Amino acid sequence: MLEKMGKAAKAASYQMALLSSREKNRALECIADNLEAQAAAILEANEKDLAEAKANGLSEAMLDRLQLTPSRLSSIANDVRQVCNLADPVGQIIDGGVLDSGLRLERRRVPLGVVGVIYEARPNVTVDVASLCLKTGNAAILRGGKETWRTNAATVKVIQQALTECGLPAAAVQAIESPDRALVNELLRMDRYVDMLIPRGGAGLHKLCREQSTIPVITGGIGVCHIFVDDSAEFEPALRIIVNAKTQRPSTCNTVETLLVHQGIAANFLPALSQQMAESGVTLHADEKALPLLQNGPAEVLPVKAEDYDDEWLSLHLNVKVVANIDDAIDHIREHGTQHSDAILTRTLRNANRFVNEVDSSAVYVNASTRFTDGGQFGLGAEVAVSTQKLHARGPMGLEALTTYKWIGFGDDTIRA
Amino acid sequence: MLEKMGKAAKAASYQMALLSSREKNRALECIADNLEAQAAAILEANEKDLAEAKANGLSEAMLDRLQLTPSRLSSIANDVRQVCNLADPVGQIIDGGVLDSGLRLERRRVPLGVVGVIYEARPNVTVDVASLCLKTGNAAILRGGKETWRTNAATVKVIQQALTECGLPAAAVQAIESPDRALVNELLRMDRYVDMLIPRGGAGLHKLCREQSTIPVITGGIGVCHIFVDDSAEFEPALRIIVNAKTQRPSTCNTVETLLVHQGIAANFLPALSQQMAESGVTLHADEKALPLLQNGPAEVLPVKAEDYDDEWLSLHLNVKVVANIDDAIDHIREHGTQHSDAILTRTLRNANRFVNEVDSSAVYVNASTRFTDGGQFGLGAEVAVSTQKLHARGPMGLEALTTYKWIGFGDDTIRA
Repeated sequence: MLEKMGKAAKAASYQMALLSSREKNRALECIADNLEAQAAAILEANEKDLAEAKANGLSEAMLDRLQLTPSRLSSIANDVRQVCNLADPVGQIIDGGVLDSGLRLERRRVPLGVVGVIYEARPNVTVDVASLCLKTGNAAILRGGKETWRTNAATVKVIQQALTECGLPAAAVQAIESPDRALVNELLRMDRYVDMLIPRGGAGLHKLCREQSTIPVITGGIGVCHIFVDDSAEFEPALRIIVNAKTQRPSTCNTVETLLVHQGIAANFLPALSQQMAESGVTLHADEKALPLLQNGPAEVLPVKAEDYDDEWLSLHLNVKVVANIDDAIDHIREHGTQHSDAILTRTLRNANRFVNEVDSSAVYVNASTRFTDGGQFGLGAEVAVSTQKLHARGPMGLEALTTYKWIGFGDDTIRA
Repeated sequence: MLEKMGKAAKAASYQMALLSSREKNRALECIADNLEAQAAAILEANEKDLAEAKANGLSEAMLDRLQLTPSRLSSIANDVRQVCNLADPVGQIIDGGVLDSGLRLERRRVPLGVVGVIYEARPNVTVDVASLCLKTGNAAILRGGKETWRTNAATVKVIQQALTECGLPAAAVQAIESPDRALVNELLRMDRYVDMLIPRGGAGLHKLCREQSTIPVITGGIGVCHIFVDDSAEFEPALRIIVNAKTQRPSTCNTVETLLVHQGIAANFLPALSQQMAESGVTLHADEKALPLLQNGPAEVLPVKAEDYDDEWLSLHLNVKVVANIDDAIDHIREHGTQHSDAILTRTLRNANRFVNEVDSSAVYVNASTRFTDGGQFGLGAEVAVSTQKLHARGPMGLEALTTYKWIGFGDDTIRA
């Protein structure tokens, strides 16, 4: 089955690559309209998914994530309309010139071809990813969380009808419409048809893709993010940044998980931190140097376990470790970080520069919240994923990350000397 | 053993990333000087490799490829000196600006970290790859062909001495000094330390890397390249381009392997082709439509086998197929090409544009030889490899392909709203 999907996706991708921005936007408008017009079918499928999820005892938070409502669906449709307003990177000339030989050479941005996306049970991601792939002239093969497979299938059916109405190949957006996990493994080996694979999910999925995929994979989205509070930091703004980075939306990958505090200010800073964290409802996990300085404060505090440094809390918990100096802080981040987002709070120019140069992460910040690592915040207009690997795209991936380039040589019967 | 190498390489990479261009160039000069000064040790190791290769019955061509001489070593040293003249991409600001939030954001080019390279038995590649990695502030782990392992080990020893003399970590350039093939498999799983893997070799090595590697791999270097002779092509320049693309250096990956000839000109063009190919010493492999038109000509001609379309000849052999039209040609290239380099010879603007837009290869040419696909020819100054996959780098890879970027956010105690 997947072989057939792959072949159809590749064939569709050749057609999609040739569309003008206007044609692609027309298809996106049509998809948005159809999502609203055929809401009933999608909501019905979603109800079945929800009923099964309830029967399986999923948490309330999870159920809320799965659920679609007419207004949520409208907001998803409006997101598709927003994609029309984004600049289309396809066709852009990256660089070019005339070679010594007389060959006129240009590097032109083109779609990747077929993009495979494996994601968690979030019904909006289906539409989101499909619209970004279409905007960039790619075909997409989608595999959403098994808890929403009926919703995804119904959604993709609506998208495909819209494509057909616009005279475009339905195979440009396909979903693996089965909760069978074995199909994921099959998808991972379809390098003949799929040009790039984006896993969006937990560490386990990323590991599976890294180990099993024969398709180039963009891993990311796992953020063990750090803030280093240097001894020259000012307390009040430092606490404001920490509150923002920890509590603004704790479940996100750019939330801070570990605070590294310079030993020179620990005795004064940590009591103030405890006060602030108590107000923000944050539980602290302190190393042996930090613990005595926090134990008398109002915030809840526990001894940190070694493994806490290597995992995301994704909730109102924060590790606190006292470090000897900036070198110690950088070493800790190199060992425990996930190359996502790390920040230094300092008033010392040299330390700001050292941190920026020596911390090997997708995003590094000076006196700012780690929460900025986001396609929307970075002005990319959209976010396909956040990459924490170094090839092709690093950090938030916008539309450009769904493209590649080709070299085009225009000769006048030109041969190599 | 490899675990230790990986760890040392990663540590070295942190140091290398901070070097100025001047410091890196000084190290390169020192390496070049030491390669000449310590030629005796390298040549001695090379003699042992050669003796073993001879005993194993390697071909004369292969032995010549393995052999180092004082003058070859000098020329390798001079190549290192040339790398000093290349512009250093590290530190370049790709783009940047101030976000609505007030955060000043820039995207800065940085080294990849640790680059792994697996290559054939060519002693010059060791120095070549090492110098390009050093120039871009990366550490390198090298695994050359097993026939030259002694030469590689001796060469890397000289490079490491030069690094130490310059106060740089010897672990910035390491070689796997054993012909044991199992170590390759071990290297492929070292994603904890190695950021990018470049295999340079045959299709088997690329397949192994795609299937086994947990490190992002850049595959490429396999070129089943096509030239489509459209019915509007002029014969004389067309033949000149075909001769260049086939015979200028037949063993290279950008050499044409299959000629697709429009049926409208086949009856006149193929006899002229036979004449020219006979003069150039090229054997033709013709499909059933081309065969009768070539059989009476002076060039040697055989019936093409189905599998000939999917393999590189890398010698003076050329497939010839008659196609109905440009659609037919594009379909053939999509099915049998390796997304390396393909050309159209035409006088028709619309067909030129169609070919450029619809052929999904790293390099596409209009009225020019496929032989141009080369880092030197493209003005990249150097060539690490030729990528035929679409992520990170496509086509000839220059120094830039050995870098990535990081996002740097400079705040003024800036938080996300």
